[in-house]
Amino acid sequence: MREFKTQRRIEFADTDLGGIVHFSRYFVFMETAEHQFLDSLGTSVHLVEGDRTIGWPRVKVSCEYAGPARYGDTLDIKVRVLRRGTSSVTYGIEFEIDGRQVARGESTSVRCELGPSMKAIPIPDELARKMEEG
Amino acid sequence: MREFKTQRRIEFADTDLGGIVHFSRYFVFMETAEHQFLDSLGTSVHLVEGDRTIGWPRVKVSCEYAGPARYGDTLDIKVRVLRRGTSSVTYGIEFEIDGRQVARGESTSVRCELGPSMKAIPIPDELARKMEEG
Amino acid sequence: MREFKTQRRIEFADTDLGGIVHFSRYFVFMETAEHQFLDSLGTSVHLVEGDRTIGWPRVKVSCEYAGPARYGDTLDIKVRVLRRGTSSVTYGIEFEIDGRQVARGESTSVRCELGPSMKAIPIPDELARKMEEG
Amino acid sequence: MREFKTQRRIEFADTDLGGIVHFSRYFVFMETAEHQFLDSLGTSVHLVEGDRTIGWPRVKVSCEYAGPARYGDTLDIKVRVLRRGTSSVTYGIEFEIDGRQVARGESTSVRCELGPSMKAIPIPDELARKMEEG
Repeated sequence: MREFKTQRRIEFADTDLGGIVHFSRYFVFMETAEHQFLDSLGTSVHLVEGDRTIGWPRVKVSCEYAGPARYGDTLDIKVRVLRRGTSSVTYGIEFEIDGRQVARGESTSVRCELGPSMKAIPIPDELARKMEEG
Repeated sequence: MREFKTQRRIEFADTDLGGIVHFSRYFVFMETAEHQFLDSLGTSVHLVEGDRTIGWPRVKVSCEYAGPARYGDTLDIKVRVLRRGTSSVTYGIEFEIDGRQVARGESTSVRCELGPSMKAIPIPDELARKMEEG
Repeated sequence: MREFKTQRRIEFADTDLGGIVHFSRYFVFMETAEHQFLDSLGTSVHLVEGDRTIGWPRVKVSCEYAGPARYGDTLDIKVRVLRRGTSSVTYGIEFEIDGRQVARGESTSVRCELGPSMKAIPIPDELARKMEEG
Repeated sequence: MREFKTQRRIEFADTDLGGIVHFSRYFVFMETAEHQFLDSLGTSVHLVEGDRTIGWPRVKVSCEYAGPARYGDTLDIKVRVLRRGTSSVTYGIEFEIDGRQVARGESTSVRCELGPSMKAIPIPDELARKMEEG
Protein backbone atom coordinates (compact mmCIF):
# COMPACT_ATOMS: atom_id res chain seq x y z
CA MET A 1 0.00 0.00 0.00
CA ARG A 2 1.08 3.55 -0.64
CA GLU A 3 2.89 5.47 2.05
CA PHE A 4 2.94 9.24 2.43
CA LYS A 5 5.32 11.27 4.57
CA THR A 6 5.01 14.79 5.92
CA GLN A 7 6.31 16.88 8.78
CA ARG A 8 4.88 19.33 11.24
CA ARG A 9 6.42 21.61 13.83
CA ILE A 10 4.76 21.77 17.25
CA GLU A 11 3.29 25.20 17.97
CA PHE A 12 2.85 26.89 21.35
CA ALA A 13 -0.94 26.61 21.06
CA ASP A 14 -0.64 22.80 20.63
CA THR A 15 0.59 22.43 24.22
CA ASP A 16 -1.19 22.22 27.56
CA LEU A 17 -0.24 22.92 31.17
CA GLY A 18 1.53 19.55 31.36
CA GLY A 19 4.14 21.16 29.08
CA ILE A 20 3.41 18.69 26.26
CA VAL A 21 1.19 18.50 23.19
CA HIS A 22 -2.47 18.12 24.14
CA PHE A 23 -3.62 14.61 23.17
CA SER A 24 -6.54 15.94 21.10
CA ARG A 25 -4.18 17.82 18.76
CA TYR A 26 -2.90 14.55 17.28
CA PHE A 27 -6.30 14.13 15.66
CA VAL A 28 -5.90 17.45 13.88
CA PHE A 29 -2.38 16.40 12.86
CA MET A 30 -3.79 13.09 11.52
CA GLU A 31 -6.55 14.79 9.59
CA THR A 32 -4.24 17.29 7.94
CA ALA A 33 -1.77 14.54 7.01
CA GLU A 34 -4.62 12.50 5.45
CA HIS A 35 -5.74 15.54 3.47
CA GLN A 36 -2.19 16.12 2.22
CA PHE A 37 -2.14 12.46 1.19
CA LEU A 38 -5.40 12.88 -0.77
CA ASP A 39 -4.00 16.06 -2.36
CA SER A 40 -0.88 14.11 -3.39
CA LEU A 41 -3.18 11.63 -5.21
CA GLY A 42 -4.79 14.47 -7.17
CA THR A 43 -8.06 14.56 -5.25
CA SER A 44 -9.35 16.45 -2.20
CA VAL A 45 -11.27 15.74 0.99
CA HIS A 46 -13.95 18.19 -0.16
CA LEU A 47 -15.00 18.03 -3.81
CA VAL A 48 -17.79 19.85 -5.57
CA GLU A 49 -18.80 18.00 -8.79
CA GLY A 50 -21.76 19.67 -10.48
CA ASP A 51 -24.50 19.75 -7.84
CA ARG A 52 -22.91 17.03 -5.72
CA THR A 53 -20.58 17.66 -2.78
CA ILE A 54 -18.37 14.72 -1.94
CA GLY A 55 -16.58 14.33 1.38
CA TRP A 56 -15.01 11.75 3.67
CA PRO A 57 -16.82 11.78 7.04
CA ARG A 58 -14.92 9.97 9.74
CA VAL A 59 -16.58 7.00 11.43
CA LYS A 60 -13.87 5.88 13.84
CA VAL A 61 -10.55 7.16 15.12
CA SER A 62 -8.07 6.08 17.75
CA CYS A 63 -4.65 7.05 19.03
CA GLU A 64 -2.07 5.46 21.32
CA TYR A 65 0.48 7.66 23.04
CA ALA A 66 4.04 6.41 23.60
CA GLY A 67 5.77 9.57 24.74
CA PRO A 68 5.52 13.33 24.89
CA ALA A 69 6.02 15.87 22.11
CA ARG A 70 7.03 19.40 23.10
CA TYR A 71 6.97 22.96 21.76
CA GLY A 72 9.40 23.29 18.86
CA ASP A 73 9.68 19.54 18.16
CA THR A 74 9.31 18.43 14.56
CA LEU A 75 6.98 15.47 14.06
CA ASP A 76 7.78 13.06 11.24
CA ILE A 77 4.37 11.80 10.14
CA LYS A 78 3.78 8.68 8.06
CA VAL A 79 0.35 7.91 6.58
CA ARG A 80 -0.41 4.41 5.27
CA VAL A 81 -3.56 2.87 3.83
CA LEU A 82 -4.18 -0.05 6.19
CA ARG A 83 -7.48 -1.29 4.73
CA ARG A 84 -9.73 -0.28 1.86
CA GLY A 85 -13.37 -1.24 1.29
CA THR A 86 -15.81 -0.27 -1.44
CA SER A 87 -16.48 3.12 0.13
CA SER A 88 -14.20 3.24 3.15
CA VAL A 89 -10.54 3.60 3.88
CA THR A 90 -8.61 3.10 7.11
CA TYR A 91 -5.37 4.99 7.53
CA GLY A 92 -2.58 4.20 9.96
CA ILE A 93 -0.65 7.29 11.03
CA GLU A 94 2.68 7.20 12.86
CA PHE A 95 4.27 10.15 14.64
CA GLU A 96 8.01 10.15 15.34
CA ILE A 97 10.52 12.64 16.72
CA ASP A 98 14.14 11.91 15.81
CA GLY A 99 13.27 8.26 15.18
CA ARG A 100 11.42 7.82 18.50
CA GLN A 101 7.71 6.98 18.13
CA VAL A 102 5.51 9.32 20.16
CA ALA A 103 2.06 8.32 18.93
CA ARG A 104 0.28 6.02 16.51
CA GLY A 105 -3.26 6.46 15.28
CA GLU A 106 -5.89 4.92 13.05
CA SER A 107 -8.71 6.65 11.26
CA THR A 108 -11.57 5.27 9.15
CA SER A 109 -13.46 7.49 6.71
CA VAL A 110 -16.28 6.74 4.29
CA ARG A 111 -16.60 8.44 0.90
CA CYS A 112 -20.03 10.08 0.95
CA GLU A 113 -22.25 12.34 -1.02
CA LEU A 114 -22.90 15.09 1.51
CA GLY A 115 -26.28 16.71 2.03
CA PRO A 116 -29.26 16.57 4.39
CA SER A 117 -28.78 12.80 4.43
CA MET A 118 -25.32 11.37 3.80
CA LYS A 119 -24.99 8.50 1.35
CA ALA A 120 -21.91 6.27 1.06
CA ILE A 121 -20.60 6.11 -2.51
CA PRO A 122 -17.88 3.89 -4.01
CA ILE A 123 -14.28 5.01 -4.19
CA PRO A 124 -13.57 5.45 -7.94
CA ASP A 125 -11.33 2.73 -9.41
CA GLU A 126 -8.59 5.14 -10.34
CA LEU A 127 -8.37 6.60 -6.84
CA ALA A 128 -8.50 3.11 -5.30
CA ARG A 129 -5.61 2.06 -7.54
CA LYS A 130 -3.57 5.11 -6.57
CA MET A 131 -4.20 4.42 -2.88
CA GLU A 132 -2.72 0.97 -3.28
CA GLU A 133 0.30 1.70 -5.45
CA GLY A 134 3.59 1.05 -3.68
CA MET B 1 -27.17 49.67 27.66
CA ARG B 2 -28.06 46.13 28.50
CA GLU B 3 -25.63 43.96 30.40
CA PHE B 4 -25.45 40.17 30.27
CA LYS B 5 -23.61 37.91 32.69
CA THR B 6 -22.43 34.35 32.30
CA GLN B 7 -19.77 32.03 33.70
CA ARG B 8 -17.33 29.54 32.31
CA ARG B 9 -14.99 27.04 33.92
CA ILE B 10 -11.45 26.77 32.53
CA GLU B 11 -10.80 23.38 30.94
CA PHE B 12 -7.48 21.55 30.67
CA ALA B 13 -7.47 22.04 26.88
CA ASP B 14 -7.73 25.83 27.37
CA THR B 15 -4.23 25.95 28.87
CA ASP B 16 -0.75 26.07 27.35
CA LEU B 17 2.74 25.13 28.53
CA GLY B 18 2.93 28.40 30.48
CA GLY B 19 0.41 26.80 32.84
CA ILE B 20 -2.23 29.42 32.04
CA VAL B 21 -5.10 29.90 29.60
CA HIS B 22 -3.85 30.41 26.03
CA PHE B 23 -4.57 33.99 25.00
CA SER B 24 -6.47 32.94 21.87
CA ARG B 25 -9.06 31.08 23.94
CA TYR B 26 -10.48 34.36 25.30
CA PHE B 27 -11.81 35.04 21.79
CA VAL B 28 -13.78 31.80 21.89
CA PHE B 29 -15.01 32.73 25.38
CA MET B 30 -16.07 36.17 24.06
CA GLU B 31 -17.87 34.71 21.07
CA THR B 32 -19.82 32.20 23.11
CA ALA B 33 -20.81 34.87 25.64
CA GLU B 34 -22.03 37.13 22.81
CA HIS B 35 -24.06 34.25 21.39
CA GLN B 36 -25.61 33.58 24.78
CA PHE B 37 -26.47 37.28 24.97
CA LEU B 38 -28.18 37.13 21.55
CA ASP B 39 -30.04 33.98 22.64
CA SER B 40 -31.20 35.83 25.77
CA LEU B 41 -32.71 38.51 23.49
CA GLY B 42 -34.69 35.88 21.60
CA THR B 43 -32.54 35.85 18.47
CA SER B 44 -29.49 33.85 17.31
CA VAL B 45 -26.13 34.47 15.68
CA HIS B 46 -27.18 32.23 12.80
CA LEU B 47 -30.73 32.64 11.49
CA VAL B 48 -32.38 31.05 8.48
CA GLU B 49 -35.40 33.13 7.33
CA GLY B 50 -36.93 31.71 4.16
CA ASP B 51 -34.10 31.61 1.64
CA ARG B 52 -31.95 34.13 3.53
CA THR B 53 -29.27 33.24 6.02
CA ILE B 54 -28.43 36.01 8.45
CA GLY B 55 -25.26 36.13 10.50
CA TRP B 56 -22.96 38.50 12.37
CA PRO B 57 -19.47 38.38 10.81
CA ARG B 58 -16.82 39.93 13.01
CA VAL B 59 -14.88 42.88 11.64
CA LYS B 60 -12.61 43.73 14.57
CA VAL B 61 -11.68 42.22 17.92
CA SER B 62 -9.18 43.04 20.62
CA CYS B 63 -8.22 41.82 24.08
CA GLU B 64 -6.06 43.16 26.90
CA TYR B 65 -4.66 40.74 29.46
CA ALA B 66 -4.29 41.78 33.10
CA GLY B 67 -3.46 38.48 34.74
CA PRO B 68 -3.49 34.73 34.30
CA ALA B 69 -6.43 32.33 34.47
CA ARG B 70 -5.69 28.71 35.34
CA TYR B 71 -7.20 25.23 35.00
CA GLY B 72 -10.31 24.94 37.18
CA ASP B 73 -10.82 28.70 37.61
CA THR B 74 -14.33 30.04 37.03
CA LEU B 75 -14.50 33.12 34.84
CA ASP B 76 -17.24 35.65 35.55
CA ILE B 77 -18.02 37.13 32.15
CA LYS B 78 -19.87 40.38 31.57
CA VAL B 79 -21.05 41.39 28.08
CA ARG B 80 -22.09 44.99 27.42
CA VAL B 81 -23.23 46.77 24.26
CA LEU B 82 -20.68 49.59 23.98
CA ARG B 83 -21.82 51.07 20.64
CA ARG B 84 -24.55 50.32 18.15
CA GLY B 85 -24.79 51.48 14.53
CA THR B 86 -27.39 50.79 11.84
CA SER B 87 -25.94 47.36 11.11
CA SER B 88 -23.11 46.98 13.60
CA VAL B 89 -22.68 46.38 17.28
CA THR B 90 -19.58 46.61 19.47
CA TYR B 91 -19.51 44.55 22.62
CA GLY B 92 -17.26 45.06 25.62
CA ILE B 93 -16.52 41.84 27.46
CA GLU B 94 -14.94 41.65 30.91
CA PHE B 95 -13.44 38.54 32.46
CA GLU B 96 -13.03 38.30 36.24
CA ILE B 97 -11.97 35.63 38.69
CA ASP B 98 -13.13 36.23 42.28
CA GLY B 99 -13.50 39.94 41.55
CA ARG B 100 -10.02 40.30 40.00
CA GLN B 101 -10.06 41.32 36.32
CA VAL B 102 -7.98 39.00 34.15
CA ALA B 103 -8.90 40.23 30.68
CA ARG B 104 -11.05 42.75 28.85
CA GLY B 105 -12.03 42.56 25.21
CA GLU B 106 -13.97 44.35 22.51
CA SER B 107 -15.63 42.86 19.48
CA THR B 108 -17.43 44.48 16.55
CA SER B 109 -19.84 42.50 14.37
CA VAL B 110 -22.01 43.51 11.43
CA ARG B 111 -25.45 42.03 10.76
CA CYS B 112 -25.20 40.55 7.26
CA GLU B 113 -27.10 38.52 4.77
CA LEU B 114 -24.69 35.67 4.17
CA GLY B 115 -23.98 34.18 0.76
CA PRO B 116 -21.43 34.35 -2.04
CA SER B 117 -21.21 38.07 -1.33
CA MET B 118 -22.00 39.37 2.14
CA LYS B 119 -24.34 42.35 2.43
CA ALA B 120 -24.76 44.43 5.59
CA ILE B 121 -28.40 44.72 6.66
CA PRO B 122 -29.97 46.89 9.37
CA ILE B 123 -30.48 45.61 12.89
CA PRO B 124 -34.29 45.33 13.29
CA ASP B 125 -35.79 48.01 15.56
CA GLU B 126 -37.07 45.53 18.10
CA LEU B 127 -33.67 43.88 18.50
CA ALA B 128 -31.95 47.29 18.66
CA ARG B 129 -34.35 48.30 21.42
CA LYS B 130 -33.71 45.11 23.37
CA MET B 131 -29.94 45.62 23.04
CA GLU B 132 -30.26 49.01 24.68
CA GLU B 133 -32.70 48.27 27.47
CA GLY B 134 -31.17 48.67 30.94
CA MET C 1 -19.43 0.69 38.25
CA ARG C 2 -20.17 4.30 38.92
CA GLU C 3 -21.79 6.44 36.27
CA PHE C 4 -21.48 10.20 35.94
CA LYS C 5 -23.66 12.48 33.84
CA THR C 6 -23.02 15.96 32.53
CA GLN C 7 -24.10 18.21 29.68
CA ARG C 8 -22.43 20.54 27.25
CA ARG C 9 -23.75 23.00 24.68
CA ILE C 10 -22.08 23.04 21.26
CA GLU C 11 -20.29 26.32 20.58
CA PHE C 12 -19.69 27.99 17.22
CA ALA C 13 -15.96 27.34 17.52
CA ASP C 14 -16.63 23.58 17.90
CA THR C 15 -17.87 23.36 14.31
CA ASP C 16 -16.12 23.03 10.95
CA LEU C 17 -17.00 23.85 7.35
CA GLY C 18 -19.07 20.66 7.14
CA GLY C 19 -21.54 22.48 9.42
CA ILE C 20 -21.05 19.95 12.22
CA VAL C 21 -18.84 19.51 15.29
CA HIS C 22 -15.23 18.78 14.33
CA PHE C 23 -14.41 15.19 15.27
CA SER C 24 -11.38 16.20 17.36
CA ARG C 25 -13.55 18.26 19.72
CA TYR C 26 -15.15 15.11 21.16
CA PHE C 27 -11.79 14.34 22.77
CA VAL C 28 -11.89 17.67 24.59
CA PHE C 29 -15.49 16.95 25.60
CA MET C 30 -14.41 13.50 26.90
CA GLU C 31 -11.49 14.91 28.85
CA THR C 32 -13.56 17.60 30.54
CA ALA C 33 -16.28 15.08 31.43
CA GLU C 34 -13.65 12.77 32.96
CA HIS C 35 -12.25 15.66 34.98
CA GLN C 36 -15.72 16.56 36.23
CA PHE C 37 -16.14 12.90 37.22
CA LEU C 38 -12.85 12.98 39.19
CA ASP C 39 -13.93 16.25 40.83
CA SER C 40 -17.22 14.59 41.82
CA LEU C 41 -15.19 11.88 43.62
CA GLY C 42 -13.33 14.53 45.62
CA THR C 43 -10.04 14.33 43.70
CA SER C 44 -8.57 16.13 40.68
CA VAL C 45 -6.72 15.29 37.49
CA HIS C 46 -3.82 17.45 38.67
CA LEU C 47 -2.81 17.13 42.31
CA VAL C 48 0.15 18.65 44.12
CA GLU C 49 0.95 16.66 47.30
CA GLY C 50 4.06 18.02 49.03
CA ASP C 51 6.81 17.87 46.40
CA ARG C 52 4.96 15.34 44.24
CA THR C 53 2.71 16.22 41.31
CA ILE C 54 0.23 13.52 40.40
CA GLY C 55 -1.57 13.36 37.07
CA TRP C 56 -3.37 10.98 34.75
CA PRO C 57 -1.56 10.88 31.38
CA ARG C 58 -3.63 9.31 28.65
CA VAL C 59 -2.25 6.22 26.92
CA LYS C 60 -5.04 5.39 24.49
CA VAL C 61 -8.23 7.00 23.24
CA SER C 62 -10.81 6.20 20.59
CA CYS C 63 -14.12 7.50 19.33
CA GLU C 64 -16.84 6.20 17.02
CA TYR C 65 -19.18 8.65 15.32
CA ALA C 66 -22.84 7.74 14.74
CA GLY C 67 -24.26 11.07 13.63
CA PRO C 68 -23.64 14.79 13.53
CA ALA C 69 -23.92 17.34 16.34
CA ARG C 70 -24.55 20.95 15.39
CA TYR C 71 -24.17 24.47 16.78
CA GLY C 72 -26.55 25.00 19.68
CA ASP C 73 -27.19 21.30 20.33
CA THR C 74 -26.93 20.10 23.91
CA LEU C 75 -24.90 16.94 24.39
CA ASP C 76 -25.93 14.58 27.18
CA ILE C 77 -22.66 12.98 28.27
CA LYS C 78 -22.37 9.80 30.30
CA VAL C 79 -19.03 8.68 31.79
CA ARG C 80 -18.61 5.12 33.01
CA VAL C 81 -15.62 3.24 34.46
CA LEU C 82 -15.29 0.29 32.07
CA ARG C 83 -12.12 -1.26 33.50
CA ARG C 84 -9.80 -0.51 36.39
CA GLY C 85 -6.27 -1.82 36.93
CA THR C 86 -3.75 -1.14 39.70
CA SER C 87 -2.76 2.19 38.18
CA SER C 88 -5.01 2.56 35.15
CA VAL C 89 -8.61 3.30 34.42
CA THR C 90 -10.58 3.04 31.18
CA TYR C 91 -13.62 5.24 30.78
CA GLY C 92 -16.46 4.75 28.35
CA ILE C 93 -18.09 8.02 27.34
CA GLU C 94 -21.41 8.28 25.50
CA PHE C 95 -22.71 11.38 23.75
CA GLU C 96 -26.43 11.75 23.05
CA ILE C 97 -28.69 14.49 21.69
CA ASP C 98 -32.36 14.09 22.60
CA GLY C 99 -31.84 10.36 23.18
CA ARG C 100 -30.04 9.79 19.85
CA GLN C 101 -26.44 8.61 20.21
CA VAL C 102 -24.01 10.74 18.20
CA ALA C 103 -20.69 9.41 19.44
CA ARG C 104 -19.14 6.92 21.82
CA GLY C 105 -15.56 7.00 23.05
CA GLU C 106 -13.10 5.19 25.27
CA SER C 107 -10.13 6.62 27.08
CA THR C 108 -7.42 4.95 29.17
CA SER C 109 -5.33 6.93 31.64
CA VAL C 110 -2.60 5.89 34.07
CA ARG C 111 -2.12 7.50 37.47
CA CYS C 112 1.44 8.80 37.45
CA GLU C 113 3.88 10.80 39.46
CA LEU C 114 4.81 13.50 36.99
CA GLY C 115 8.31 14.81 36.49
CA PRO C 116 11.30 14.40 34.18
CA SER C 117 10.44 10.71 34.05
CA MET C 118 6.85 9.61 34.63
CA LYS C 119 6.23 6.75 37.05
CA ALA C 120 2.97 4.82 37.29
CA ILE C 121 1.61 4.75 40.86
CA PRO C 122 -1.30 2.77 42.32
CA ILE C 123 -4.78 4.23 42.51
CA PRO C 124 -5.46 4.69 46.27
CA ASP C 125 -7.95 2.17 47.70
CA GLU C 126 -10.45 4.84 48.66
CA LEU C 127 -10.51 6.34 45.18
CA ALA C 128 -10.72 2.88 43.58
CA ARG C 129 -13.69 2.08 45.82
CA LYS C 130 -15.43 5.34 44.89
CA MET C 131 -14.87 4.65 41.18
CA GLU C 132 -16.68 1.35 41.53
CA GLU C 133 -19.60 2.33 43.73
CA GLY C 134 -22.96 2.03 41.96
CA MET D 1 12.39 47.86 11.10
CA ARG D 2 12.95 44.24 10.25
CA GLU D 3 10.30 42.34 8.33
CA PHE D 4 9.77 38.59 8.42
CA LYS D 5 7.72 36.53 5.97
CA THR D 6 6.20 33.11 6.33
CA GLN D 7 3.32 31.07 4.91
CA ARG D 8 0.66 28.80 6.27
CA ARG D 9 -1.92 26.58 4.62
CA ILE D 10 -5.46 26.63 6.04
CA GLU D 11 -6.44 23.30 7.60
CA PHE D 12 -9.92 21.79 7.86
CA ALA D 13 -9.88 22.24 11.64
CA ASP D 14 -9.27 26.00 11.20
CA THR D 15 -12.73 26.47 9.70
CA ASP D 16 -16.19 26.91 11.21
CA LEU D 17 -19.75 26.32 10.02
CA GLY D 18 -19.64 29.60 8.11
CA GLY D 19 -17.25 27.78 5.75
CA ILE D 20 -14.38 30.15 6.58
CA VAL D 21 -11.48 30.31 9.02
CA HIS D 22 -12.67 30.90 12.57
CA PHE D 23 -11.61 34.41 13.63
CA SER D 24 -9.84 33.14 16.77
CA ARG D 25 -7.43 31.05 14.68
CA TYR D 26 -5.71 34.20 13.36
CA PHE D 27 -4.31 34.71 16.86
CA VAL D 28 -2.67 31.29 16.73
CA PHE D 29 -1.35 32.13 13.25
CA MET D 30 0.04 35.44 14.60
CA GLU D 31 1.69 33.80 17.58
CA THR D 32 3.39 31.12 15.51
CA ALA D 33 4.62 33.72 13.00
CA GLU D 34 6.06 35.81 15.86
CA HIS D 35 7.81 32.74 17.25
CA GLN D 36 9.28 31.95 13.84
CA PHE D 37 10.49 35.56 13.70
CA LEU D 38 12.19 35.21 17.12
CA ASP D 39 13.73 31.91 15.98
CA SER D 40 15.06 33.67 12.87
CA LEU D 41 16.83 36.17 15.18
CA GLY D 42 18.54 33.33 17.05
CA THR D 43 16.39 33.49 20.18
CA SER D 44 13.16 31.78 21.34
CA VAL D 45 9.88 32.70 22.96
CA HIS D 46 10.72 30.34 25.82
CA LEU D 47 14.28 30.39 27.14
CA VAL D 48 15.75 28.63 30.14
CA GLU D 49 18.96 30.38 31.29
CA GLY D 50 20.35 28.79 34.44
CA ASP D 51 17.52 28.92 36.98
CA ARG D 52 15.64 31.67 35.12
CA THR D 53 12.87 31.06 32.60
CA ILE D 54 12.32 33.92 30.21
CA GLY D 55 9.16 34.36 28.16
CA TRP D 56 7.13 36.98 26.33
CA PRO D 57 3.63 37.16 27.87
CA ARG D 58 1.16 38.99 25.68
CA VAL D 59 -0.52 42.11 27.09
CA LYS D 60 -2.67 43.22 24.17
CA VAL D 61 -3.75 41.83 20.82
CA SER D 62 -6.16 42.90 18.11
CA CYS D 63 -7.22 41.82 14.65
CA GLU D 64 -9.24 43.38 11.84
CA TYR D 65 -10.88 41.14 9.25
CA ALA D 66 -11.14 42.27 5.63
CA GLY D 67 -12.28 39.08 3.93
CA PRO D 68 -12.63 35.33 4.34
CA ALA D 69 -9.93 32.67 4.16
CA ARG D 70 -11.01 29.15 3.24
CA TYR D 71 -9.84 25.55 3.55
CA GLY D 72 -6.79 24.98 1.36
CA ASP D 73 -5.90 28.67 0.97
CA THR D 74 -2.30 29.64 1.56
CA LEU D 75 -1.82 32.67 3.79
CA ASP D 76 1.15 34.93 3.10
CA ILE D 77 2.07 36.29 6.52
CA LYS D 78 4.23 39.34 7.13
CA VAL D 79 5.50 40.21 10.63
CA ARG D 80 6.90 43.68 11.33
CA VAL D 81 8.20 45.30 14.51
CA LEU D 82 5.94 48.36 14.84
CA ARG D 83 7.20 49.67 18.17
CA ARG D 84 9.85 48.65 20.67
CA GLY D 85 10.19 49.75 24.30
CA THR D 86 12.72 48.79 26.98
CA SER D 87 10.94 45.50 27.67
CA SER D 88 8.09 45.41 25.19
CA VAL D 89 7.61 44.90 21.49
CA THR D 90 4.56 45.45 19.29
CA TYR D 91 4.28 43.43 16.13
CA GLY D 92 2.10 44.20 13.14
CA ILE D 93 1.04 41.08 11.26
CA GLU D 94 -0.55 41.08 7.81
CA PHE D 95 -2.34 38.15 6.22
CA GLU D 96 -2.77 38.00 2.45
CA ILE D 97 -4.10 35.44 -0.05
CA ASP D 98 -2.88 35.97 -3.62
CA GLY D 99 -2.15 39.62 -2.87
CA ARG D 100 -5.58 40.29 -1.30
CA GLN D 101 -5.43 41.28 2.38
CA VAL D 102 -7.73 39.14 4.54
CA ALA D 103 -6.70 40.25 8.03
CA ARG D 104 -4.33 42.52 9.87
CA GLY D 105 -3.36 42.21 13.52
CA GLU D 106 -1.25 43.77 16.23
CA SER D 107 0.25 42.09 19.25
CA THR D 108 2.21 43.51 22.19
CA SER D 109 4.39 41.30 24.36
CA VAL D 110 6.66 42.06 27.31
CA ARG D 111 9.91 40.23 27.95
CA CYS D 112 9.55 38.75 31.44
CA GLU D 113 11.24 36.52 33.92
CA LEU D 114 8.55 33.93 34.49
CA GLY D 115 7.70 32.47 37.89
CA PRO D 116 5.17 32.84 40.67
CA SER D 117 5.31 36.59 40.02
CA MET D 118 6.24 37.83 36.55
CA LYS D 119 8.85 40.58 36.29
CA ALA D 120 9.47 42.65 33.14
CA ILE D 121 13.13 42.58 32.10
CA PRO D 122 14.93 44.62 29.41
CA ILE D 123 15.30 43.32 25.89
CA PRO D 124 19.06 42.68 25.46
CA ASP D 125 20.82 45.25 23.23
CA GLU D 126 21.85 42.69 20.65
CA LEU D 127 18.29 41.37 20.25
CA ALA D 128 16.91 44.91 20.11
CA ARG D 129 19.40 45.73 17.36
CA LYS D 130 18.45 42.65 15.38
CA MET D 131 14.76 43.51 15.71
CA GLU D 132 15.42 46.87 14.10
CA GLU D 133 17.77 45.90 11.32
CA GLY D 134 16.27 46.40 7.85
